[in-house]
Amino acid sequence: VDAPVKNLPQLTQASAPLTQAVDVIDAEGQPRAVSIPAERDLTLYVDKREIITLMTLGAHPEWLTLGYLLNQRMIRHAYELESITVDWSVNASAVKTRFTSESAPHNRGKRIVTTGCGQGTLFGSLMDELDSLHLAPAAAITRDTVFAIVQAIRERDTVYKNAGSVHACALFEGSDLRCFIEDVGRHNALDSIAGWLALGDLQQQTAPWVLYTTGRLTSEMIIKAAQMGVSIVISRSGMTQMGLEIARRLGVCAIGRALNRHFLCFSAEHRLIAG
Amino acid sequence: VDAPVKNLPQLTQASAPLTQAVDVIDAEGQPRAVSIPAERDLTLYVDKREIITLMTLGAHPEWLTLGYLLNQRMIRHAYELESITVDWSVNASAVKTRFTSESAPHNRGKRIVTTGCGQGTLFGSLMDELDSLHLAPAAAITRDTVFAIVQAIRERDTVYKNAGSVHACALFEGSDLRCFIEDVGRHNALDSIAGWLALGDLQQQTAPWVLYTTGRLTSEMIIKAAQMGVSIVISRSGMTQMGLEIARRLGVCAIGRALNRHFLCFSAEHRLIAG
Repeated sequence: VDAPVKNLPQLTQASAPLTQAVDVIDAEGQPRAVSIPAERDLTLYVDKREIITLMTLGAHPEWLTLGYLLNQRMIRHAYELESITVDWSVNASAVKTRFTSESAPHNRGKRIVTTGCGQGTLFGSLMDELDSLHLAPAAAITRDTVFAIVQAIRERDTVYKNAGSVHACALFEGSDLRCFIEDVGRHNALDSIAGWLALGDLQQQTAPWVLYTTGRLTSEMIIKAAQMGVSIVISRSGMTQMGLEIARRLGVCAIGRALNRHFLCFSAEHRLIAG
Repeated sequence: VDAPVKNLPQLTQASAPLTQAVDVIDAEGQPRAVSIPAERDLTLYVDKREIITLMTLGAHPEWLTLGYLLNQRMIRHAYELESITVDWSVNASAVKTRFTSESAPHNRGKRIVTTGCGQGTLFGSLMDELDSLHLAPAAAITRDTVFAIVQAIRERDTVYKNAGSVHACALFEGSDLRCFIEDVGRHNALDSIAGWLALGDLQQQTAPWVLYTTGRLTSEMIIKAAQMGVSIVISRSGMTQMGLEIARRLGVCAIGRALNRHFLCFSAEHRLIAG
């Protein structure tokens, strides 16, 4: 018999302007027009129950919604959802699940507070899960691939270049850019990547996933990467102590300070290979 | 009759190393030793009740504890506390209040989720309070004071210069630096400033408070500044749309992109004066 068909959720493709022009005064006292990133509130509802309000740039609100629910452990798979409907006229993302009242996980609606700003309890809750994570031992990256990824990010036209004040996350398959997300919150950017990934067909993968982020490599970045099955993470920024401890424990290759042809490899050096 | 004496809480002065040396591999494959910021968990207990675990650099954990409780609206004044005792051997900050069971606020232990990473509900909860905030209409800053503040920050020896990956907040009285805090989380840095401020004697103030931050001017930064009575905020980074909306609504003068002798004034331009 065939495996049961697992349908992916139906998604809207709600889009919204990513930047806004504003009038400012410069240091010479002269009026100027500059762009700043758009920022809008998006309230998530799961089966009509309000879950949380996210502040987001709004580039890919459906992926953000899906990735948020996955990373908060409120769902385990994209096919648990029937639809995600984003409506910017009411700043709402309405999620319809396939759960019956019996199949709904007990932790639905139980929100995990994130540690990203150094305040939260995600760390504690997730540490228990860490030992169940097993990353592919053979996943590796060459120095030239690190350089190629940094170069690809630098050449990209971005909201950051136009308006500043956003973080970017990108997922590469080897040196091929597969998904690029900017957001006012770096957790939103990473959650959106997780949402995109959960909609894809991983059997087609030909090279290891590599996660690039403009943000620091904190404990939460490393944990979320590992939960996505990503064992190589690159940042143009640095690394915190807790991020490093967890990267070493999980065997995540954490590469920081990646700019031009420089970088520092903080952990899992065996994944960084010649070439 | 004299006003009742309002005693400030007794504080420990727990200190801990702010950086850690780690061994890394650079892009040439050579081993190097670099410093990264220390990061440690600190669990807050209020009258023996566990409140939250913060990830912090740990420079001023007592101020952080006090500022966190203030900014989360769990207390209103420093003198509501009898003591704050930080013990790094158990990573705990134990707060003893002067509340009796009758005087304890109803919202004790009710945690507000922060929006700093773009995820949270602080925004919604606090918007209700915004209209009660009235900043001093006359508080103003000269262009030269902005330059002097940027220069003072640049000349300072910091964890950031040594190890990167931390955010700084500083409180100036006019152009005089009064308090400088770095932390792995910028909310922690700001909360620590709030804690420091709550311990001081505001009647001695001779010039308006000016808050400097290395981080973006988000809605939460602006709100927390306004709650501290600070109407002028300077960042070397940019501004988000929600931050701008709230700064304009509250009359907070938000100055961004402050580097060398450049900056952009986004709001409350009347507070930026000649000189």
